[in-house]
Amino acid sequence: MLSIVQNSLGGPEVLEPAETEIPEPAFTEVQVRVHATSVNPVETYVRAGHFPLIGQPPFVLGWDVSGVVTKVGPGASRFAVGDEVFGMPHFPRAASAYSEYIVSPTRMLARKPASLDHVHAAALPLVGLTAWQGLVDFAQVGEGDRVLVHAAGGGVGHIAVQIAKARGAYVIGTASTAKVDFVRSLGADEVIDYRTTDFAEVVRDTDVVFDVVGSGTGERSFPTLRRGGTLLTAVEHGNAELRAKTEAAGLRFLGVAVEPDYTGLEALARLVEDGKLRPHVSSVLPLRDAAKAHELVESGSTQGKVVLTAA
Amino acid sequence: MLSIVQNSLGGPEVLEPAETEIPEPAFTEVQVRVHATSVNPVETYVRAGHFPLIGQPPFVLGWDVSGVVTKVGPGASRFAVGDEVFGMPHFPRAASAYSEYIVSPTRMLARKPASLDHVHAAALPLVGLTAWQGLVDFAQVGEGDRVLVHAAGGGVGHIAVQIAKARGAYVIGTASTAKVDFVRSLGADEVIDYRTTDFAEVVRDTDVVFDVVGSGTGERSFPTLRRGGTLLTAVEHGNAELRAKTEAAGLRFLGVAVEPDYTGLEALARLVEDGKLRPHVSSVLPLRDAAKAHELVESGSTQGKVVLTAA
Repeated sequence: MLSIVQNSLGGPEVLEPAETEIPEPAFTEVQVRVHATSVNPVETYVRAGHFPLIGQPPFVLGWDVSGVVTKVGPGASRFAVGDEVFGMPHFPRAASAYSEYIVSPTRMLARKPASLDHVHAAALPLVGLTAWQGLVDFAQVGEGDRVLVHAAGGGVGHIAVQIAKARGAYVIGTASTAKVDFVRSLGADEVIDYRTTDFAEVVRDTDVVFDVVGSGTGERSFPTLRRGGTLLTAVEHGNAELRAKTEAAGLRFLGVAVEPDYTGLEALARLVEDGKLRPHVSSVLPLRDAAKAHELVESGSTQGKVVLTAA
Repeated sequence: MLSIVQNSLGGPEVLEPAETEIPEPAFTEVQVRVHATSVNPVETYVRAGHFPLIGQPPFVLGWDVSGVVTKVGPGASRFAVGDEVFGMPHFPRAASAYSEYIVSPTRMLARKPASLDHVHAAALPLVGLTAWQGLVDFAQVGEGDRVLVHAAGGGVGHIAVQIAKARGAYVIGTASTAKVDFVRSLGADEVIDYRTTDFAEVVRDTDVVFDVVGSGTGERSFPTLRRGGTLLTAVEHGNAELRAKTEAAGLRFLGVAVEPDYTGLEALARLVEDGKLRPHVSSVLPLRDAAKAHELVESGSTQGKVVLTAA
């Protein structure tokens, strides 16, 4: 089968199409024909060697997947051949979704919502679970909460806006000028163009700030939070100094590192079926163009997700 | 810390106490001080080399764990230091629970039910999830179903009887003479002493047969099932011939290979808190006596579970 293999750490050019063995499903696993996978910023960090989640090359990157079950391993009775599934198996360990086939334990997958095609379903797991686990499982955002979402036009951000709205929150998003209309179209109640307006000057009294940007964005958000409010970060969870400063400011510090979770995937699928959530895909490329997809993601200019198709 | 390391495949004597490094929690993980772990038959197969789930020695066996969170890795916000948790992280891959400390992704653990001590909570995950995923997730046992549980006094069996009863089923258990009273005490409606009575002669019209024995028990159970009934097996899921025969007999074949699942653990914890489920522990030994624990499990005479304590 075709996989994108990398034999060394480096720039996008290390991602090379290569022929690999189709994996066979073991005990607890199904084999999935990958129709689409999506590219997340974390994969660009792993590719370049800045985040050694899966050891040293050679390896195949990729976690997000949407596809069709082609074989069922012993005891893997949650699915049957032909079922359409999506998920992000094994994150943050063993990756391999930049491939025509993967194997996965069944409880790292869920049924693909029927109203999403594979391209859009592959765009959802990693960013969707990050937003769901952060906003719902941890911060418990609910009716009437005021939520500030940074980079609200990006991969995690554009899903976070929709999930917070679906939970009944009042949502304020920050975005660059080019993405303001997009973020408004997602249902945000207010959108701040961070190129022209300092959010720290104009936003007040939020219950939750969701930071997927880092580089000081969390600390600059302190004045926007009500006393006791929550700084939820998907990027600086390991920053002990930021945690200490947050707590010293009378705020709650919460990190979210996304994990595989079929229950969360099922919750996302229900939001999709209810018409409350739709991942936005800005670019679709064939799997063999993974290097180009990484360049796009690293440009930082994409609105929503970059997807690779393998079928 | 103390771990039980094995450097070669073989009999119980290959399990040796040794000093190992305390693992540090990574991204998504917590570190858990293991208070107790339990021994499952699958570990005796892996130890002996009959079921190569985790590669070649040296390795540390063990999946079931109950303990206390001692460190929280970046973004692992589901738990805080001091939380009591239980689970079977990474099954059927990387094992290490025969140790004083483990690390685990947070969604492979759940909060320990307060009414169980660590010894009993450590006895529950692998057998409890096997029974829950098989009977509830897959076979969907409910009110009024007739369920035959084989080896109803064993590790999986004694939990399966209680779960089926909690779901409102009519439960028939098979057991050896010495375990008949024990199985009755679990709430089974009928208990068949398989040493004196052939279950295939006396049981009829069941909706589900749960086989954790193998060696022909599944096929011999065909006459006990109603037309369209389900043969659920936790041991012969890979037996294609048995599957074909089952389907040819007008029955449904279902295998269950257990997977980590915090949702399932939470369901088990609720049954415990509701007074409907309690694991039975027949022997408790200190961790360094893991070899003796394996001998006990291999003797086949234990009622319920064998637990190792590490604190």
